[in-house]
Amino acid sequence: MSDRILDPIKLLTEKGVAEIFPNSPTESLQARLSTSDRSLRIKLGIDPTRPDLHLGHAVVLRKMRQFQDAGHIAVLIIGDFTAQIGDPTGKSEARPRLTSEEVAYNAKTYFEQARKILDFDTPEKLELRYNSEWLGTLDLQVIISLLSSMTVGQMLAKEDFSERYGQGTPIYLHEFLYPLMQGYDSIIIDSDVELGGTEQKFNILVGRDLQTRRSGSVQFGLLVPLLVGLDGVQKMSKSLDNYVGLTEDPLSMYSKLEKVPDALVPRYFELLTDVDLATLPTNPRERQKLLALTITSQYHSPEAAQQAQQDAEKIVLSGNTTDLGQIPEFAVDSIAKFPVPLAYLLKASGMCSSNNEAKSQITNGGVRLDGEKIQDVDRAFASAVELAGKVLQVGKKKFLRLV
Amino acid sequence: MSDRILDPIKLLTEKGVAEIFPNSPTESLQARLSTSDRSLRIKLGIDPTRPDLHLGHAVVLRKMRQFQDAGHIAVLIIGDFTAQIGDPTGKSEARPRLTSEEVAYNAKTYFEQARKILDFDTPEKLELRYNSEWLGTLDLQVIISLLSSMTVGQMLAKEDFSERYGQGTPIYLHEFLYPLMQGYDSIIIDSDVELGGTEQKFNILVGRDLQTRRSGSVQFGLLVPLLVGLDGVQKMSKSLDNYVGLTEDPLSMYSKLEKVPDALVPRYFELLTDVDLATLPTNPRERQKLLALTITSQYHSPEAAQQAQQDAEKIVLSGNTTDLGQIPEFAVDSIAKFPVPLAYLLKASGMCSSNNEAKSQITNGGVRLDGEKIQDVDRAFASAVELAGKVLQVGKKKFLRLV
Repeated sequence: MSDRILDPIKLLTEKGVAEIFPNSPTESLQARLSTSDRSLRIKLGIDPTRPDLHLGHAVVLRKMRQFQDAGHIAVLIIGDFTAQIGDPTGKSEARPRLTSEEVAYNAKTYFEQARKILDFDTPEKLELRYNSEWLGTLDLQVIISLLSSMTVGQMLAKEDFSERYGQGTPIYLHEFLYPLMQGYDSIIIDSDVELGGTEQKFNILVGRDLQTRRSGSVQFGLLVPLLVGLDGVQKMSKSLDNYVGLTEDPLSMYSKLEKVPDALVPRYFELLTDVDLATLPTNPRERQKLLALTITSQYHSPEAAQQAQQDAEKIVLSGNTTDLGQIPEFAVDSIAKFPVPLAYLLKASGMCSSNNEAKSQITNGGVRLDGEKIQDVDRAFASAVELAGKVLQVGKKKFLRLV
Repeated sequence: MSDRILDPIKLLTEKGVAEIFPNSPTESLQARLSTSDRSLRIKLGIDPTRPDLHLGHAVVLRKMRQFQDAGHIAVLIIGDFTAQIGDPTGKSEARPRLTSEEVAYNAKTYFEQARKILDFDTPEKLELRYNSEWLGTLDLQVIISLLSSMTVGQMLAKEDFSERYGQGTPIYLHEFLYPLMQGYDSIIIDSDVELGGTEQKFNILVGRDLQTRRSGSVQFGLLVPLLVGLDGVQKMSKSLDNYVGLTEDPLSMYSKLEKVPDALVPRYFELLTDVDLATLPTNPRERQKLLALTITSQYHSPEAAQQAQQDAEKIVLSGNTTDLGQIPEFAVDSIAKFPVPLAYLLKASGMCSSNNEAKSQITNGGVRLDGEKIQDVDRAFASAVELAGKVLQVGKKKFLRLV
């Protein structure tokens, strides 16, 4: 183990960190962490319109967990107010208008996934807040005061606004209000640190700036890197289909992760695991497998990860190289009578739509069991034990785990 | 009398009008006025931070009065909400922060002056509204919706913003909100026409645009010209000292107006009087005197105007050419004993600080009565009748009307 892992302040401020600001000899988060005599309040904004979490979201949640483990308070702010307003122009797909029921459902879904990473069980380390609590009652006087804290020029300097203004793409005035509302959240919850991806720098600086205008904490910004997706090129995102969901089944998770491009593997270890980079295997294939095994263990269990590894190896043996997605399961003891013919199993499990289609697939060499091709149309199995734990495959894309 | 004066719709839409919009074959204020089967609601915003009215303000108030006389409703909106907020940056002298007492006092002062022009006595023709009524309870959702109705590009196209942005002068974000708040006023009071100076075009268009997004009236904009001040060059304004206040005494008002540059005289007649331009005297000096007499009559009485004209002529005879300002009065029957020496009168009335100063001024030729120089240090007056109605002058700048 390296010193880095042993020193909790270094862990917080160096591992998996893109930038911390401010960072000067007179004002640094390291100094704040070592001198503070109280738990710090660590802010993270949650968008309830996109509750499907993947490993890209895990990066910042893991950073938050490290703060919890060091005794600090995770303050999660659910942006229900803006979610319920949506984008009044209807032009932004990123801002659909949600009902309060949808927000509540999405928040619940989010929490179910986030608790795989965050400590939800120690009440003094977690604070859940909904920003409608303060934004819903904000009056025009405060809004004018917030708006008066920034100039048009400062706002247009924000990277995405600057690009759009340069291209002549319309920027609607209410878009200027959102960074200020996020900043106002920081005033209300009195945050000491705000976490976010690198694209959040401007908004976090706005919050810091607003906080300096009143007495109370002035937050540091801690930015985590964006996670590159499985394609090795673009940011991990659901719409680009280069992601691993936090709730994916072990086999799917393992199978995707063991193919992470070699160049990304150390970064994935740094951002997504506790493994000391100095201890990684030198063989690239072994490193990929360790990464897949480690992350699958974290979100499921070591046993489930081991099983996923075995299943994946069987499938690889079958020569299939497509992306697996989520493999459904079929309980073989639901079959009433053994011995069971393979064709019947294919129909009963829904892999084929009829007995005839099943026989045709077998004859044409489209059916494999644990990677082994079966072309005997009369093949049958004596008992459930003979099938359980094996992966049944039809064609190149249909898989079924027999359990 | 010309047709123009006889046709009430032409009077409203042509006399003293800089621009009306929209104005197309399918949509015009003339058509609206001739087909409407109800009284129209005519909006005018009142800034309670500047309650000292002068003839520059009279232009738009006279236009409003014409609408009242034609049976329409003057809706005066007192901008108390923004006046009480002021400019949060403290950078705008035009937006000081007022208390509600100051707003109430200024509004009262404004009304006292405005009623010299508007019909305040026919309740169904006047509606006074304070915009804190609706802006004070505006919530963030509505504000976001208002902001979303315009783009940054549209706002920066507004002339004053465009200039400042081009020059790099900071524009604070809340400044973008003010035109939208003024526009929201139009929604709330359901205006059919909004009056304003030419610099109000953008704001009135914003109100029109917001109104089209809901059912109800969509206002026309009627812009009146800015009145050029007594200097003949710049907009009439108190700070440039080229103005005539609505509450100035008759002599001061007359004396200023009889010196209006000849080139401006027809415009002053058009914007500030009911006189038919076709009937104006051909002699420039006679035109100036008629202008001064007419306007002074309007704000005081024909008798007071005649008196002012006589007083002014006496002062002119004395060779004095300085700007008169407001001439104080002194009641000669407050003098206990007649005959009264001139020197005593000068001291008793405060024109000189001592008897010695008074005698010295007389000896040196600094004292005039109705323009006639008096150098006899022993001059005395037998009775109050001998003095009443005359103007006493010491030096070039001190005047006193004896009454």
